[in-house]
Amino acid sequence: MTRLLIENATIVTLDDDGTIYPGAAILIEEGVIAAIGPGAALATADERMDAGGGVVMPGLYNAHTHAAMTFARGYAEDLPLDRWFNERIWRLESALTPEMVYWGTLAAIVEMVRGGVVGFADHYFHMDQVVRAVTESGMRANLAWAVFGSPAEEEVGITIPLTVEFVRRTQGAAGGRLTASLGPHSPYQCPDSFLARTAAVAVREGMGIHIHASETAEQVRQSIATFDMSPIELLSHRGLFETHTILAHAIHANDWDLDTLATKDVNVVQCPSTHLRYGMGVTRVPDMLARGVNVALGTDGAGSSAALNLWRELRLAVLTQRQAHEDATLLGGAVPLRMAAPNGARALGFWKAGTLAPGYAADLIVVDTMATHFQPVHDVVAALIWCTEPADVRNVMVAGRWLMRDRALLTVNEGEVMAGFRGALETMLGRPLSQFREYTGKPVNQA
Amino acid sequence: MTRLLIENATIVTLDDDGTIYPGAAILIEEGVIAAIGPGAALATADERMDAGGGVVMPGLYNAHTHAAMTFARGYAEDLPLDRWFNERIWRLESALTPEMVYWGTLAAIVEMVRGGVVGFADHYFHMDQVVRAVTESGMRANLAWAVFGSPAEEEVGITIPLTVEFVRRTQGAAGGRLTASLGPHSPYQCPDSFLARTAAVAVREGMGIHIHASETAEQVRQSIATFDMSPIELLSHRGLFETHTILAHAIHANDWDLDTLATKDVNVVQCPSTHLRYGMGVTRVPDMLARGVNVALGTDGAGSSAALNLWRELRLAVLTQRQAHEDATLLGGAVPLRMAAPNGARALGFWKAGTLAPGYAADLIVVDTMATHFQPVHDVVAALIWCTEPADVRNVMVAGRWLMRDRALLTVNEGEVMAGFRGALETMLGRPLSQFREYTGKPVNQA
Repeated sequence: MTRLLIENATIVTLDDDGTIYPGAAILIEEGVIAAIGPGAALATADERMDAGGGVVMPGLYNAHTHAAMTFARGYAEDLPLDRWFNERIWRLESALTPEMVYWGTLAAIVEMVRGGVVGFADHYFHMDQVVRAVTESGMRANLAWAVFGSPAEEEVGITIPLTVEFVRRTQGAAGGRLTASLGPHSPYQCPDSFLARTAAVAVREGMGIHIHASETAEQVRQSIATFDMSPIELLSHRGLFETHTILAHAIHANDWDLDTLATKDVNVVQCPSTHLRYGMGVTRVPDMLARGVNVALGTDGAGSSAALNLWRELRLAVLTQRQAHEDATLLGGAVPLRMAAPNGARALGFWKAGTLAPGYAADLIVVDTMATHFQPVHDVVAALIWCTEPADVRNVMVAGRWLMRDRALLTVNEGEVMAGFRGALETMLGRPLSQFREYTGKPVNQA
Repeated sequence: MTRLLIENATIVTLDDDGTIYPGAAILIEEGVIAAIGPGAALATADERMDAGGGVVMPGLYNAHTHAAMTFARGYAEDLPLDRWFNERIWRLESALTPEMVYWGTLAAIVEMVRGGVVGFADHYFHMDQVVRAVTESGMRANLAWAVFGSPAEEEVGITIPLTVEFVRRTQGAAGGRLTASLGPHSPYQCPDSFLARTAAVAVREGMGIHIHASETAEQVRQSIATFDMSPIELLSHRGLFETHTILAHAIHANDWDLDTLATKDVNVVQCPSTHLRYGMGVTRVPDMLARGVNVALGTDGAGSSAALNLWRELRLAVLTQRQAHEDATLLGGAVPLRMAAPNGARALGFWKAGTLAPGYAADLIVVDTMATHFQPVHDVVAALIWCTEPADVRNVMVAGRWLMRDRALLTVNEGEVMAGFRGALETMLGRPLSQFREYTGKPVNQA
């Protein structure tokens, strides 16, 4: 049993009291935090690491993504959401292979670990491939097999029983680093009866749900026209909030919707990069927080957000509210970090993670706040929120195991991942993929 | 006369046609771009550099900042703009020393060069110290000595003649890397008569102006109450737009204001991080661009933006418009890069910079787009806009001289800069500055 002591750190716990330990150490034992305090009092460690005066804090949790969609990064720019999906992404995804999901997810994991992300909630296809990628990489994740409930899907065997079986075999796997959810796509894609059946199964089986809703004002209008209910009201009436639910987006929510979310175990995931890039509207985060809704952050897929960078998302979460309400005090203090860490861990279904405290999972990162672009550190919380870029994350630990030390990845071979990623993408596209076209002697003028 | 060839690059010129040369090389001679094309045709170079398949593009220009204010980074968070200034920043600045300006500016230059910024427009105090910092570091800059036109200032000798003399001796200095402007603070700080006198002197002397205006709706209300004119209308009537003008913010501009800006050599600088953090409102950038106004980007000071990161600003410039107008097509294509590079160079008064083309200044950067978080590069312009973080900038050249190669700074000693910075700040604060408080055995609970 190794006892690891990380010393010479400012420890930002993100606990409910906002406790910060300057010049302290943290002791890790069996994947769990054993103690936090002055280094000398914890001197019985077998192994020691010097944090170099930097910050030790919880790793970040990306609470809504389609990780494998790294293949679609930059593939469809400057389009409205419906054209982005119908004209570009859907056509590309129609050739999706299990290999693309495996390598695309690993590429995403490389990017996320390099940016201090320790866990993610994934909602996609060929999810057994994602289990492989998560298991091999040492990440933490909550996985949902996306289903539309369409007759075409049923024909190829993608049914509620299949996804129930997936949740059964995935929940608690990878040494407890995996949780799983049922993944009905959304009220605008799934038949009403399919949503109700999914909810009933989820409650009976004690399974969680990960779903999208209320992404656009148009979706709300259509829902009211069809059901006389908002999408969130519909989900509530169909029983989808009677279990642990990850609800992505929830942008156009009315007061009734918010009151309902607050009384249930619904974890709203805001994806600011995507919401902003596609002009989808402003999630009512201050109203949600005021009601006690657990609000977490996600990057969505790289096809819409271009980056799996939670630091961007936590900053944009603040900026989007301050722009919308012209109020410089909104989402102040440690709120953005809390959305990215403890709230994210809770959304993923890991109740003893996301905070640095004895008994909690050793999911943590070391941030090099000594770099010039952090200095001076008048306020360590503000420094972390506003100055941290992915490259400032030096070390990443999940469940007591180092995934990255001094920027070197320890559980995945980045060169192999990128070679596999490229091969899978070339197969899917049916053409070789050069980073850029070969030089032809003539300049290429962009439209 | 050394002829340097940078080979094996995708060259993103940011010229008016959006020309991109894949697999190409760029030849630099005497600080100027001599040729761009296939490497073989440019084989007469004395020195060669392999860009490793990355992108060579113009460096970025930070067109409005108070560089030395790195000392105020994170010093006053989550406050409305008036309280931020009156209760915190103004009190801190009251103890400002020339040494703080020198070291604070050098710290800013370190951060900017590391993030691919090759030039900046500075508006601050003790500007001879900024001249020193710019000259030593090899940066490009447009410098303005900030003046309020107050009796108190006049008493200590800070007068229009002093700043005119500053512009005379700075314009064209540092081998042509320096330009200079007169720096009346703003219509809400400067007496009306002072603005008119400044404008008259500027026109007579052929000097440019760098000024703030229309930062808040309240400023516009006050201006109309006092002058029956918007702040921009007032500046126009007082003659401040009869020369090359850098106009920071211009958030609350009406149609008449925009039409006026479009007919003059007024360069609007939007500072999205600051505008968003303080909920100041949304600059009418699409309307400005439609009228042909030159819109550039600035970080403002680190006291308000926390980061001197132009990549953030160019992304936020897009996102803020798409949020405000719920339109995913706004500021598409290369527009964000054009605002940060050619438009920025023009705002600074460097007409032959900001674009990669023969005869233009060799102000350029090499971006490592081979990193995992850029892959795949379906669209190189989108990749640069949405994926680049400061740490992805490998090399930075200003006027043909390398300021950074492979992330190593070549013209400033970062350790010395940070030691000097800390010393100056401790003197100014009158207390020792530990990055974090010493550990006392008790946790520190943040408010």
